[in-house]
Amino acid sequence: MPKVSFRISEKETIDVTVEIGERIMDIARNSGIYIDAPCSGNGTCGKCRVQIVDGDAESHPTRHITDEDYAAGWRLACETKVTGDVTVLVPETASAFRTGIRTADLNDPTVRAAFDDVQNDLKAAGVMGDPAVFTCEITMDPPTLEDTLCDTDRIERAVKAAIGQEAKLSLYALRKLAQVLREDDFHVRCVLSRDEDCVHILDVGSAKSKRKICGLAIDIGTTTVTAALVDMETGELLARGSAGNAQIRYGADVINRIIESGRDGGRERLRRAVVDETLIPLIGTLCRKAKIYQKQIYRACIAGNTTMSHLLLGLYADPVRMEPFIPSFFQCHEMRLNDVLSGLHPEAKLVLTPNVGSYVGGDITSGLLACTLWNRDELELFIDLGTNGEIVLGSSEFLFTCACSAGPAFEGGDISCGMRATNGAIEKVRIDKETMEPTLSIIGSKSQKPLGLCGSGIIDTVAELFRGGIISAKGKFAREGERIRYDEHGMGRYVLAFEDQSADGREVSINEVDLDNFIRAKGAIFSAILLMLRQLGMEPSDLTRIQIAGGIGGGIDFPNAITIGIFPDLPLEKFSYIGNSSLSGAYAVLLSREAAAKVRELGSNMTYVELSNEPGYMDEFVSACFLPHTNAELFPSVEV
Amino acid sequence: MPKVSFRISEKETIDVTVEIGERIMDIARNSGIYIDAPCSGNGTCGKCRVQIVDGDAESHPTRHITDEDYAAGWRLACETKVTGDVTVLVPETASAFRTGIRTADLNDPTVRAAFDDVQNDLKAAGVMGDPAVFTCEITMDPPTLEDTLCDTDRIERAVKAAIGQEAKLSLYALRKLAQVLREDDFHVRCVLSRDEDCVHILDVGSAKSKRKICGLAIDIGTTTVTAALVDMETGELLARGSAGNAQIRYGADVINRIIESGRDGGRERLRRAVVDETLIPLIGTLCRKAKIYQKQIYRACIAGNTTMSHLLLGLYADPVRMEPFIPSFFQCHEMRLNDVLSGLHPEAKLVLTPNVGSYVGGDITSGLLACTLWNRDELELFIDLGTNGEIVLGSSEFLFTCACSAGPAFEGGDISCGMRATNGAIEKVRIDKETMEPTLSIIGSKSQKPLGLCGSGIIDTVAELFRGGIISAKGKFAREGERIRYDEHGMGRYVLAFEDQSADGREVSINEVDLDNFIRAKGAIFSAILLMLRQLGMEPSDLTRIQIAGGIGGGIDFPNAITIGIFPDLPLEKFSYIGNSSLSGAYAVLLSREAAAKVRELGSNMTYVELSNEPGYMDEFVSACFLPHTNAELFPSVEV
Repeated sequence: MPKVSFRISEKETIDVTVEIGERIMDIARNSGIYIDAPCSGNGTCGKCRVQIVDGDAESHPTRHITDEDYAAGWRLACETKVTGDVTVLVPETASAFRTGIRTADLNDPTVRAAFDDVQNDLKAAGVMGDPAVFTCEITMDPPTLEDTLCDTDRIERAVKAAIGQEAKLSLYALRKLAQVLREDDFHVRCVLSRDEDCVHILDVGSAKSKRKICGLAIDIGTTTVTAALVDMETGELLARGSAGNAQIRYGADVINRIIESGRDGGRERLRRAVVDETLIPLIGTLCRKAKIYQKQIYRACIAGNTTMSHLLLGLYADPVRMEPFIPSFFQCHEMRLNDVLSGLHPEAKLVLTPNVGSYVGGDITSGLLACTLWNRDELELFIDLGTNGEIVLGSSEFLFTCACSAGPAFEGGDISCGMRATNGAIEKVRIDKETMEPTLSIIGSKSQKPLGLCGSGIIDTVAELFRGGIISAKGKFAREGERIRYDEHGMGRYVLAFEDQSADGREVSINEVDLDNFIRAKGAIFSAILLMLRQLGMEPSDLTRIQIAGGIGGGIDFPNAITIGIFPDLPLEKFSYIGNSSLSGAYAVLLSREAAAKVRELGSNMTYVELSNEPGYMDEFVSACFLPHTNAELFPSVEV
Repeated sequence: MPKVSFRISEKETIDVTVEIGERIMDIARNSGIYIDAPCSGNGTCGKCRVQIVDGDAESHPTRHITDEDYAAGWRLACETKVTGDVTVLVPETASAFRTGIRTADLNDPTVRAAFDDVQNDLKAAGVMGDPAVFTCEITMDPPTLEDTLCDTDRIERAVKAAIGQEAKLSLYALRKLAQVLREDDFHVRCVLSRDEDCVHILDVGSAKSKRKICGLAIDIGTTTVTAALVDMETGELLARGSAGNAQIRYGADVINRIIESGRDGGRERLRRAVVDETLIPLIGTLCRKAKIYQKQIYRACIAGNTTMSHLLLGLYADPVRMEPFIPSFFQCHEMRLNDVLSGLHPEAKLVLTPNVGSYVGGDITSGLLACTLWNRDELELFIDLGTNGEIVLGSSEFLFTCACSAGPAFEGGDISCGMRATNGAIEKVRIDKETMEPTLSIIGSKSQKPLGLCGSGIIDTVAELFRGGIISAKGKFAREGERIRYDEHGMGRYVLAFEDQSADGREVSINEVDLDNFIRAKGAIFSAILLMLRQLGMEPSDLTRIQIAGGIGGGIDFPNAITIGIFPDLPLEKFSYIGNSSLSGAYAVLLSREAAAKVRELGSNMTYVELSNEPGYMDEFVSACFLPHTNAELFPSVEV
């Protein structure tokens, strides 16, 4: 049987014995080697490039590999079959969407600010009270031959006296109880959680213990998973980090993931990818960084879109993508965290923020909670630019929501050199109108060379190319120069970094297919905004405020975003970028039962609009697939 | 390093490499070889006899091994250390208390009768209603583009309409929901359990499914564990079986077990012995016999004494045995079965019957529920002859309870040839007054030869020996004959089966130490009865009924039991033997929430009397250590 040697980023070699005819992609998946497959391995996205450095394998030319690269051994892992012994180099870019866990620097004041802000805003709105987990120090009289109450009754009686409510001892606490009480002379600290009818004593320990009582707020994005480790008593942020969602191996978008999950063993494969390969390492990293023992995590709140929450729980998700588009749940009951995510406190509870429809999920209800749009009387817009775009239009009076199939362009997906906002990602771009030379900001150390473009870098690039007349309103190249190149099929591209300037020796560029994908994405967002407004007989000018959320990278350059027609042409002061609002909302729900009740209420009160059913949808969309828009009157401030 | 070859009952050989100086007992424990150690391995009980058949080992003579046997290689495993390669024969009797799982023959009408009786009695008492687990068949309209309710809301709404109460979908059911609904055209059967405030949907399946919904009633005795597999919808008994409690390796009585559990790793060792080595194989056997998949078990009720319930849950039990004798719990909240016993339905709940004190536990509250003494106005007595003896005296007006440290004699413990009521146990004995020749009834097939004596056989033997004048009122041998033998220390014994008549070539006999142990056990029971009565200013003649429970073997011969003064000398019609009432009670609590509430109420209403604190206790006890009693007036019917 042939042997495949995977050489991973020149650091590691993994040898696997396989059958003749197996796909490199499948072998890698089965061997725990990460190769992204945004298209789910259909040969259409071109992201799974690997290099055959020794031996040979069966493959065919593809438009994703230039003749030169093909000659150098570059192949798509999903289209290459083993014929004999072969050595395969897996470049870092093959797992660009996944690579590494990135933790935030808590000394950076903006990192904490997002959490402080949401806490203050929700406090002001009156929904940050009733802590979900709290502690209580109690002292009991030790038992005697005259006072033979058992330990459980003794502690439950003392807790009731302390908090004025019935308390039920959990099995975990019961298992420790006798010893803890006697070691600490019946003077202990209890960790409590309040449920609907009763308080549960989750844990019991020495009253002298100052161990932090922690919780996790998690945003599971289709592309990126972000988590915050939080002190449940103070709300203090202890660590924050993100990782690529390892499900990316099975498709970049929710549809491909659902299809993969429907295959034999797929549900378990996708569940493991997000749980075992993404969440558990990420949580482990956060705990190590904050010097927290994982058993100190007593609660988690997870926000994710409808598909992510279904795949997380291991549910059959096909009905989500197939007419009449019915999720298994909108709101699900609090569950035991251990049933979903192992290794944390055995009595910890998990709450998921509610879904509203198949394509408006818990990330949106969570983000909506955080942005407090529902607490003001004026008409406002909340937009989450994730792997899909979701919109909430409303006020304290009403809430409409819709999803627009923008695709993953805003997170760097569907773009040939796109990547997550992680080390090597170009996050800001300026292009000199005369020379067409770019100035790049790159995530990472000062010497970091570029690897690709993340969302904010793509917006900047498109806006700058358009503003400089380098591309037309249709996204076609209109000027010539050193930075403009064409492939053998005549497709143009703008080079942001030449081979010798990039981190991996591959040029970083944006081509006409990328521009087309991006323009359709932004067209979907803009047309959705317009349709939602018009359904209510309103115009963009009626909007008081527009809040944009998403893991876009270095924030959004709003003048650029308006120049290319993503958002309506309104005064800049109406716009604000609020970062990962899904995580901020999850943070609030984690801490406060009032916030948890509020997010459930918001989920119930939102009216889900299926845009594709709306008359005129297709016309609006087509009109918006133009820079900034076919109807120039909508963008008076943009010089064309 | 020396090699120990264990030859087990001539069927199996297990080779282990060990360190010089290790005890045979410890090596066996670490190798999964069962050798009973009722005394916890202190060399005092003599039950752990093994035979060195090749090689040698370091040991000393002991009163438990005759010189002849010592010469033949017989040793106590707990007192023998390895010095070099050695072959050790482990006889069947070495695990006499554990040996095998015994399932009941459901064609035997008496097997079902115990369960039918308790169900009828509790129905008559009005506490058999409100089923704990039930099913409900529902039909829903499938979703459409106009009716886009999610699956969870749809089924919860339908169940609420069907049963008139809120229902919460469990995670397990949620994980199956989308597929089950669509495979079965939204016509399904739900498995439900009713909790305090709400109904839980534990499972959902095809409406066509006729799969039985099952539950387990379990009695965890110190010596024997008995379980009944039950159809939760009909109450039908599907299988019943028992096994020795594998904790016997760590001591015959609760005190030795608690001491062992306090040693390093002991809690886990004892928990595993009862869970992994006893309950799981027993449940597996019952399920195979009834052709039930273990995931069909949706609820369990376990009744056990205070120590057994603590060790089952893995609790620190030292305070149970040490002044002021405080258990971790009397009543504990319903818990998830999976947290205690794995492999059954993941949403199944476990309920334990309540403890009343350190030495009156859930087996007694459960048995009390079953015997319905609490439902009648007359003064009655309920006695559980288990490894300890527990007594409840009362009526519908009041309930007093106490434990008497009778020791395990009634279950065959503390008796040199004692064994559990399983194959080879002598369960009935008649002794000819003239010839002193015995007639034996032996558990097992017709050709089964005797191995030892179980509780009912011991009672019969003592009574017959006493009645025939073979032993004195103090339990000393008073006649001579072929059946009476003496050892080198002059201790007499009565031989029930000579070497060539027994199953394993060892004589089955009862000696003066056994008689002494037994007389002290029966003295403890009788004196406790008398003290309890006198505390209320009553006499035995005030008793209307006496119900005896316990795993005594072939029931109790009441004339014999009265002859030797275990019970008061009252008309025989006042006595009844009700078998394993702890299991019957657990069966009722398993099925009915009313029964579960009743047993909690009984637990709360029982007054626990610590007999050893009572004045006159010691005098009463000493007076009762005589056949039938020092005060012959108490036993007018017994001819002495």
